[in-house]
Order: sequence, then structure tokens, then C-alpha cells
Amino acid sequence: MRLIGLDEILPAISDKSKVLQAIRSAFIDHSIGRIRLPPPTQLVFKKTATSLAGDCHVKTAYSDQYPYFCVKIATGFYGNPTKGLPVNNGLLMLFSSETGHPLSLFQDEGHLTSIRTAAAGALSAQLRISSTPSRLGIIGTGHQAELQSRWIAASCSISSLHIWGRSVTKARALKAKLKTLGIPIHIENNVADLCVTSDVILTTTPATEPILLSRHIKPGHHIIAMGSDSPGKIELEPAMLGLADVILTDDHEQCLHHGEFGHAVDAGAVEPSCDLSLGHALENLRGLDIATDAISIVDLTGLGAQDLAIASLVYDTLPPIS
Amino acid sequence: MRLIGLDEILPAISDKSKVLQAIRSAFIDHSIGRIRLPPPTQLVFKKTATSLAGDCHVKTAYSDQYPYFCVKIATGFYGNPTKGLPVNNGLLMLFSSETGHPLSLFQDEGHLTSIRTAAAGALSAQLRISSTPSRLGIIGTGHQAELQSRWIAASCSISSLHIWGRSVTKARALKAKLKTLGIPIHIENNVADLCVTSDVILTTTPATEPILLSRHIKPGHHIIAMGSDSPGKIELEPAMLGLADVILTDDHEQCLHHGEFGHAVDAGAVEPSCDLSLGHALENLRGLDIATDAISIVDLTGLGAQDLAIASLVYDTLPPIS
Repeated sequence: MRLIGLDEILPAISDKSKVLQAIRSAFIDHSIGRIRLPPPTQLVFKKTATSLAGDCHVKTAYSDQYPYFCVKIATGFYGNPTKGLPVNNGLLMLFSSETGHPLSLFQDEGHLTSIRTAAAGALSAQLRISSTPSRLGIIGTGHQAELQSRWIAASCSISSLHIWGRSVTKARALKAKLKTLGIPIHIENNVADLCVTSDVILTTTPATEPILLSRHIKPGHHIIAMGSDSPGKIELEPAMLGLADVILTDDHEQCLHHGEFGHAVDAGAVEPSCDLSLGHALENLRGLDIATDAISIVDLTGLGAQDLAIASLVYDTLPPIS
Repeated sequence: MRLIGLDEILPAISDKSKVLQAIRSAFIDHSIGRIRLPPPTQLVFKKTATSLAGDCHVKTAYSDQYPYFCVKIATGFYGNPTKGLPVNNGLLMLFSSETGHPLSLFQDEGHLTSIRTAAAGALSAQLRISSTPSRLGIIGTGHQAELQSRWIAASCSISSLHIWGRSVTKARALKAKLKTLGIPIHIENNVADLCVTSDVILTTTPATEPILLSRHIKPGHHIIAMGSDSPGKIELEPAMLGLADVILTDDHEQCLHHGEFGHAVDAGAVEPSCDLSLGHALENLRGLDIATDAISIVDLTGLGAQDLAIASLVYDTLPPIS
């Protein structure tokens, strides 16, 4: 089994267009049933005398038609910062679909997950960002907020960036980091202001109460929600999904289980069969073929298919072991 | 993350009594709810042009009260021998339950699974093998049949060993390998003969049709079935479980799902609540407190708790990295 560190991973994913193409293919393959995603296994650790609560997800993705299958283990332990350690950790492995043999272990420190998530956001943004420049609003000021801004700015036509987060200090820090993008960046006072100044709105928070509310939304908005990756998290007011002309889910069942879509179905705001597949939308080269004043929402919960795609991309670009 | 190969693993599990103690504790801890075992994830690969069918299981075991949690990935690809590769492969990992960080990767080539399975068989045998020497019957002639014979002979008082398998050649090869045990070994002509000459009977086959039938069983028999580790496998005629005075399961739910116990419940031979926990029986220092002419059956499906226990044992005995 080949051990692959960040020194080999980072160069292999530096070409954003290659990553976008790989992740796009993964969503399309998933939407036509070519990639199977068993339900993730979740381990939950309660608070103890010496550590705060933590959790671990094990995600798998496989196919009879792919040369590899993927197992990803991702952990989040929320007391780590007090020990000088990062909250998130984990690793990803590829195995041969022909022999079952372990091929590679990616010691990626969560990097591959971050990038495949950013790529999903950028692909979702592209669906409604045409040649006319759009104003991008980012709710959240963490690592994923930064990545999303960079990936969407690199792959779509963006005229300005609007940031809101609970912490003004963190919003300012994010603005400073993103200065290199060379587009106007504004820190907004609240979510309502951000929604007035933005066309495409991305939510990238670990919120457990809705942040983006129905009253914030107006015709033409394209909302991409990616914070709700496990039960208990929610970013969008459930009723808001009832206002949408189109709801896209990365995976129907997974979004029903713990995405924004599931919260809206539980609240009776939408029918459980009203969503469309993100993969199907990406397959249509014209993107989302809807009126300019329509409201669209993309619910991203994160798929093992994305992990499989990005790990395969890295593995296939490595030089053979001499 | 520390990579641990067979050169470090084998010495750490050479002391059978330490392994037995660790596996015994795992069953007991599991039976009192100290170790949690999420349902395993199963990946199934269909036959393709270049490979026969294969499968992969991902098992996890964790606890708030243990310093480690465990993820095990085990593969079986049945066309591998034609490529000169072993059918089974996989790996096992320990993570910190305090921080979620990956601690160790065991490149054990399936060895830890084999040993923790052999230890479970030996502990199950000890439950009814007292100071009076018993005659041990082994159905199956594979690697696990050899291991079971060695582990039971080392930890119980055995007067003779009786072997039956579909292939006489393999039975003879197994007999030759086990000559070093220093006890009389007989190859039996059929299962019926083996049951007449044995007190404790172990089934270690990948059978998908019952091998051991009700008519073979007589009072005093202690049956240990370990072949049925996934759906579709079966070794004991379901009606036979209706004849047992005691049925022990390593895990109630897992045995209901794909153990001999589940087949018997499905067939209406026994009630789904009639089993006792193997861990509870092991906790009782007197073993199975039943009449000498009673019939007892142990259904072993293999637990993540065993993987956690044996990996922890190895990890804890390694010298610190200098």
C-alpha cells in the first residue's frame, strides 16, 4: 500500500479545472446509479472528564465499473484546540475493485474533503452563473468559506464578494485573506443586508439553528447550503424551501436524512419527491434552465462519490514507484 | 500514524493466554454495553469481464470509556487465486477516542482477524470443557480449522481430535500439520461419524447449505459454529437449534441478522429471545452451568469488539517510538 502525503497530494489537485471535471463526473455517475454509496457509519463520543464530545464518520463509495473503491474516515473532536490540536482529522484509502487489495492511504489531514467540498460548491454556483457577472454572498468565515470564495471566483464570473459571519474579527480576517482575488469585498452587517447585495448565496456554517430565513430571500436568488453534513445541523429555515422553484440535492436519501431538504420535508414545507438530482442538472450543459427571477436551492451533504473521485484523480496522476 | 507490520504483530500475539484474556474482556464489555458496534457496511462487487465477484466489510467498534476506537476493512475477492493473490486482504486501524487522531495502521494481512476468531472459538470451547478431557471434532479443513485446533488444544484438555472435510486430501494435509499437537488425530468418513466420536464440535466452513444436521446431534454435545459471518452462509440445520438447551450468541442482533441463530428464528425453530449472551456466559467463572447431557450451541459471527481488543493488545505492547 502506497502512503501519500500532502507533498504529493497538493500538486495533484492544484489544477482546479481537472478537479471540477472529476467531481462533476462523480455527481453525474452517482445520479445514473454507477456509484453506490452505502449509508455512512457514525460514531459518537460523549463528553468525558478529559475530552469534549467528538464524532467520527466512515463513508464508502464503490462501483463494479470503477477500478477503485474508497473508504474515508473523518473525525471531529471539539476539545482538541485546548490541546493544541486541530478539531478535524482523518484519512482516506483506495482499494482495488478488481482484487480488493489496499492501494493507497492518503494522509491528507482533511484536505481532500475540503477541496472536493469546495468543488461541489463551485459546480453548484456555475449552474446559474452565466456570462453576466454575479454578486457572491458567503455566510460563514471558516476555512470552507475561504475555499468556496476562491473556487467560485476562479470558475465563475464574480463582480463582488459579500461576507457575513457571527464574528466581525473573523470576517475581517477572511476579507484580508481574499484580497488577492482582486474583486471588491464587503463585510455585511447582517444576513438581510447580505441577501440584498448578493445573487448567489453560500452557507458554510456549523449552525444548528436556521441562519438564512424566508424573509431574506428574493426572486433570482441561488442558494447553496453546505453546512448540514450530519444530523442536528441546519442553516436554512425549512419554510424557505417552499419558496424555491427548484431544489437540487446531491443525494436524495442523504439529504432527506440530514440535509436542509429533510428538515423542510419534516416541517411539511415541501413534498419528499420534489427535489431534482444535482448530477442530472450538471449533466445538462445549459445548467439550470429556469427563469432569471426563479429561486433555486442546492442542498449539499457531501458524498463518498466525491471522495472516490478526488482520490482517484490524485492516485492516477502520481508517478509510478520506481 | 504508526504503521505496524506482521514483524511487530506476531510477537505481540504469541502469548495465547494474553490474547484469550483480551478477547474474553471484549465479549464481557460488549455484553454489558461498554462497547458499541455500529452495523457493518458491506460492499458487494459483481462479476466482471476481468474479475470474479468480491466483497468488502467495514466494521467499527468504539466506546466512550476506551482509549482507542477501531475501524477494520476486510476484503474477499474470489478470483484472486487465478492471479496468484490471496482471496482475503484488509487492514485495521486504531484511532484515539480522546482526540480522533489516527494512531496506528495494522498491515496484518488478515492475521489479527484469524487470531481473534480462533480465540473466540477457544473461549467458547472452555465453557464446557472441564478438567475431564474432551474429544474435539472439527468440520472444515481450512486455515481457521487449523488455528482452532491449535488454540483449543492449547487452552483446554483435549484427548483426541477428529477431522472431517469435503476434501480428503485437505483433511490429510491438516492432520499432518497438526501432528505436533501430540494427541491422536482421526480423519472421519462423514459428519455423522465425527459426531459419534466427538464431544465438542466446531464448524469452520464457508457453507451455504447446512452441514451439521439435527440427526447428528446427541445429548452432551457442545457445538461452536463460526462459518456464518455474512448473509447467505449457513452451517447448522435450523431445526437443530430447537434441540439445544442453551444457545449463546456473540451479538444478539448480528446473529439474528446473519448467524445460525437467525436462520433458526426465521425457520420458526426457536424464539428470537431464547439466546443468551456469550459475554455473560464468559463472565460466569463456572462456565456454562448445565447438565452434562445438555446440548449447547455457540453462534459466532465475529465482532468489531474483538478487533478492537486484539489491536489494542498489540498497540499497548509495542515499544515507544524512540
